[in-house]
Amino acid sequence: METSLLDTAAAAASLCRAPAGMPRRAGSTANFLSCSSSSSSRDCRVSASYSHSISRMLSGVRSAARKKLFRADPADLLGVDTWSETGGAGQHQQVHWWTALEHNFVLEATDDEYGGVVVDADRLPVDKAAFARRLVASLSYWKSVGKKGVWLKLPVDRAEFVPLAVKEGFKYHHAEESYLMLTYWIPDEPNMLPANASHQVGVGGFVINDQMEVLVVQEKYCGSSLDGVWKLPTGFILASEEIYTGASREVKEETGVDTEFVDVVAFRHAHNVAFQKSDLFFICMLRPVSSQIKIDETEIQAAKWMPLEEFVKQPFIQEDHMFQKIMDICIQRLRKCYCGLTPHHVVSRFDDRTSTLYYNVAEPEDVNCSAA
Amino acid sequence: METSLLDTAAAAASLCRAPAGMPRRAGSTANFLSCSSSSSSRDCRVSASYSHSISRMLSGVRSAARKKLFRADPADLLGVDTWSETGGAGQHQQVHWWTALEHNFVLEATDDEYGGVVVDADRLPVDKAAFARRLVASLSYWKSVGKKGVWLKLPVDRAEFVPLAVKEGFKYHHAEESYLMLTYWIPDEPNMLPANASHQVGVGGFVINDQMEVLVVQEKYCGSSLDGVWKLPTGFILASEEIYTGASREVKEETGVDTEFVDVVAFRHAHNVAFQKSDLFFICMLRPVSSQIKIDETEIQAAKWMPLEEFVKQPFIQEDHMFQKIMDICIQRLRKCYCGLTPHHVVSRFDDRTSTLYYNVAEPEDVNCSAA
Repeated sequence: METSLLDTAAAAASLCRAPAGMPRRAGSTANFLSCSSSSSSRDCRVSASYSHSISRMLSGVRSAARKKLFRADPADLLGVDTWSETGGAGQHQQVHWWTALEHNFVLEATDDEYGGVVVDADRLPVDKAAFARRLVASLSYWKSVGKKGVWLKLPVDRAEFVPLAVKEGFKYHHAEESYLMLTYWIPDEPNMLPANASHQVGVGGFVINDQMEVLVVQEKYCGSSLDGVWKLPTGFILASEEIYTGASREVKEETGVDTEFVDVVAFRHAHNVAFQKSDLFFICMLRPVSSQIKIDETEIQAAKWMPLEEFVKQPFIQEDHMFQKIMDICIQRLRKCYCGLTPHHVVSRFDDRTSTLYYNVAEPEDVNCSAA
Repeated sequence: METSLLDTAAAAASLCRAPAGMPRRAGSTANFLSCSSSSSSRDCRVSASYSHSISRMLSGVRSAARKKLFRADPADLLGVDTWSETGGAGQHQQVHWWTALEHNFVLEATDDEYGGVVVDADRLPVDKAAFARRLVASLSYWKSVGKKGVWLKLPVDRAEFVPLAVKEGFKYHHAEESYLMLTYWIPDEPNMLPANASHQVGVGGFVINDQMEVLVVQEKYCGSSLDGVWKLPTGFILASEEIYTGASREVKEETGVDTEFVDVVAFRHAHNVAFQKSDLFFICMLRPVSSQIKIDETEIQAAKWMPLEEFVKQPFIQEDHMFQKIMDICIQRLRKCYCGLTPHHVVSRFDDRTSTLYYNVAEPEDVNCSAA
């Protein structure tokens, strides 16, 4: 065991040994593998597990050294007196040789299907200086093996790494509360990395009862142009929420009324709405299954069942091209002269997921659509 | 002029004067205004221009001091020997008194309609230490005047400010290539700040000619499950692009064929697709207005006009619930037993914008839909 550990450590260290008289540089990891840009994808998949394997090996070496299992000091074997690294504030510090080795390896990452790499956010170094060194080493290595896009996800507790990544040329891609995703496009060709989400999605519920009364609300915070008007309940769908679920949920939250989803009657597409992103708004027909109103007082001033004729006669509808058009559509839908899009669960093997397909094939059993 | 300048400077400085013997602390801006949480929105709008006015005043004071327009040294007047600040690396440095004043004021910001503030990204300090101090001062001030949400947009050239903001409790909201948006929710109640975009939007073009041949492509990079299949041209719409424009553009880019948009026949809604976001995919009917094929070789392996019957008989369609359903819909559409959603420009006063409304009111002039 001892002999093999020593041999392993020597082998690993020899890969890192700086030529005599020259300072050890980050980025010398380029010669670690023979995986070049012309290698097959199999060879590159070898590189994908390379840094992981090295990490485990070093972990074992480190553990053995602590337990003093080596017969000789590896530093003697490797022909160096001290292994020093530049710590914070420009100070050189003597570190254990295995730490020096570990600090200069590429970041843990896996290959994606498009010739890029995804850095493992769970295995980032804790130390800022180590991250900076390894990032430089990694970029040099990935460039040398012909990688294309690099995805670097920095959790919010690694916020200090953000300026370090930007300094090396990474760009912001997107962020969520818990992380910031940065990317680096290596080749000298158009950036093919996919963009992030571009649309917010809202729903509006057209809920009408047997007395031809529509469920309407007055909002507390709606901007001066809609101050005091009676409007349909609307809202954004939640993350990963279905349109047909979100519409009923918004109506329930704002008014207390339970509904069943019927169909999507139309949708509106607008741009540069919030954060310069686009907006898709789905107008949905819902059937009430309760009538008692209980409003959400944080957002809603009042809610009531209003005769449809009175609702559409409001000036804000009469004087607005879009609102008028939407109401025309809803009324056509009521008169069964119109077929909306109904939701259907479908399964696909190509992406292994269930999703919802909205369409209106006019089938005889579609009792809501007289066009059937 | 001189007297008034001195009086102004003294008045401003007196607001900042630390009680004798106590260190000056950031956050003492709380007593600058009488605008409390119970103030009217008008009073709070006064606060919105407060920091801007103070900046301009200080700018004038600074300019006057440089020109030695004061009769007496304001530092003497203000009763302090030196004004020191903590610079980088814990070193105290003597700074001009007006710089010390300026460094402790709130960040330039404007109020939004919901009781929150939006920090002016174009007027951020350049210096890290100044930003850190002013951020602390600002938060203290905004809390004292009952502000709710704080929006802090940090351009990428201020990446060094990111960890400083996170340290003060800011959370990531979203990011684009040029900036990172962070937010801070002040009140002890549910966070009401709106989320960012949640969906990517894709389009697929069903293009069929008079010979009942459908335009199909083989992609170069499509994942192993779709390797070698002939599929409809598909792609993501661009930022601020219309669905009806994007569908024709994707077909043109991939195959060289020009088309006219007819309608949306169906759409698919899926979740946790990319970056845990959702996906809306619109299947669009397009009419070809040219026939010659010229492929985009960066993404497309091959393209051709394929007899519809042969296309739908492909195993990947026959053996997949979703693809089969989509083809059934497209064929129904061809047979005019189905009405898609057509795009219509609408204008609305409520948000002052033109947008596109997709619907299928069965009007007699809609010659594509026999349900009309």
